[in-house]
Amino acid sequence: MKTINVIGSGNVAHHLIKNINALPDFKLQQVVVRSKEKAADSVPENLMITDISQLKPADLTIISVTDDAIKLISDAIPYQNSLVVHTSGTTSMAILNSKNQKGVFYPLQTFSKNRMIDFKNVPLCLETESENDLKILKVLAQQMSDKVYEISSEQRKSLHVSAVFVSNFVNHLYVIGNEICAENNVPFEVLHSLIQETAAKITLLPPRDAQTGPAIRHDEKTITAHQDFLTNETYKNIYKLITESIKNV
Amino acid sequence: MKTINVIGSGNVAHHLIKNINALPDFKLQQVVVRSKEKAADSVPENLMITDISQLKPADLTIISVTDDAIKLISDAIPYQNSLVVHTSGTTSMAILNSKNQKGVFYPLQTFSKNRMIDFKNVPLCLETESENDLKILKVLAQQMSDKVYEISSEQRKSLHVSAVFVSNFVNHLYVIGNEICAENNVPFEVLHSLIQETAAKITLLPPRDAQTGPAIRHDEKTITAHQDFLTNETYKNIYKLITESIKNV
Repeated sequence: MKTINVIGSGNVAHHLIKNINALPDFKLQQVVVRSKEKAADSVPENLMITDISQLKPADLTIISVTDDAIKLISDAIPYQNSLVVHTSGTTSMAILNSKNQKGVFYPLQTFSKNRMIDFKNVPLCLETESENDLKILKVLAQQMSDKVYEISSEQRKSLHVSAVFVSNFVNHLYVIGNEICAENNVPFEVLHSLIQETAAKITLLPPRDAQTGPAIRHDEKTITAHQDFLTNETYKNIYKLITESIKNV
Repeated sequence: MKTINVIGSGNVAHHLIKNINALPDFKLQQVVVRSKEKAADSVPENLMITDISQLKPADLTIISVTDDAIKLISDAIPYQNSLVVHTSGTTSMAILNSKNQKGVFYPLQTFSKNRMIDFKNVPLCLETESENDLKILKVLAQQMSDKVYEISSEQRKSLHVSAVFVSNFVNHLYVIGNEICAENNVPFEVLHSLIQETAAKITLLPPRDAQTGPAIRHDEKTITAHQDFLTNETYKNIYKLITESIKNV
């Protein structure tokens, strides 16, 4: 059985810990947290430590902290010659301290603490320096998820930019739609089916082929009416810019 | 049993016809199409006509044509004093010819001909001049869908603008994400789970509370890195504008 240390207690760490605990071939050895009180919901009491220098060597160490802290944390690990990975979408593998073998274990999903996630559907993007370390990460990843990918640091960078467009920015468009509905006394739930169907379509059609609406039809009458309707200048500018971009696809 | 005439053979008409045919209390009487050959897949041969003047009176007439043609088509209907509705999200009810009672039967969904839709989940937005006509439309709508709403022309206008943001514009962000992946040899399917989860979240959380990503965290380092990464000027501008908008929420 391989041992795993986790450093961190944010949303990603929380979901990883819960899942590692359920795997037969891996043993959660220690978890480094900033505050035992705050982490009490996620981490078994007897595994928690707050002082990283108390960490005992493990087969795999997962650093799941804010991007800015990854380097310092990897420097502070009190052992060497084992596999140490981070879980960040934006941070290069190279930033990790060279006293241990480097790797990345990036779960590409939007995590909220109170929202249950079926980890089997979470794509895990792996990167290592050696083939042997990749094997170790793959065994772990394949026990946790049906979707395991080898992704280089360069690819991961593009994937993260992409993810901002298709998730963070998409959610902001939901915010705008919600606001327009609220201002006009229309329940936002009227739009729920449309939102689900728009997302479901892309698993069957390339998004380019799924495009509908006034912009792709070059329906200037509707476009003008919509722009006149919008009173928020920022939303009007977003409307104009995306409409132009759709027309030029 | 109530009789229904349908005018049109586009995506919405296609889905309506298929569904009306399956209802026990309604009978599809005639369908006006532009070309019998093109409509052959959607419409039973014996019900098709191409000349609107051959249309016989029905309890309900559904005009499902492009927005610009609705007025002319409603003028050309060769009978009066029955209920005539259109299916448009952008067109006012008032545009219909006054020789018949006016109404709107707007299915708020993104339809593609080759994509099966479970009509039970399609929100139907109804509007009529009289309570009595509303009853007729409601009976039909409730047999087709679990989601029936009374929506005024004013509300419908705001709903349609909202729908452009949460569906058409969202799909364009999928197009951009897809392109970035393709340029960097990353399979777009890595992002499918994230896209589905982002859409699923809004049924449980207000979108404002679901916002994640570098913009809401004011993570300027990542924002700058992403903007430097983008080479397409339009996409870079979309990135900047939506990031600013998220920061100001």
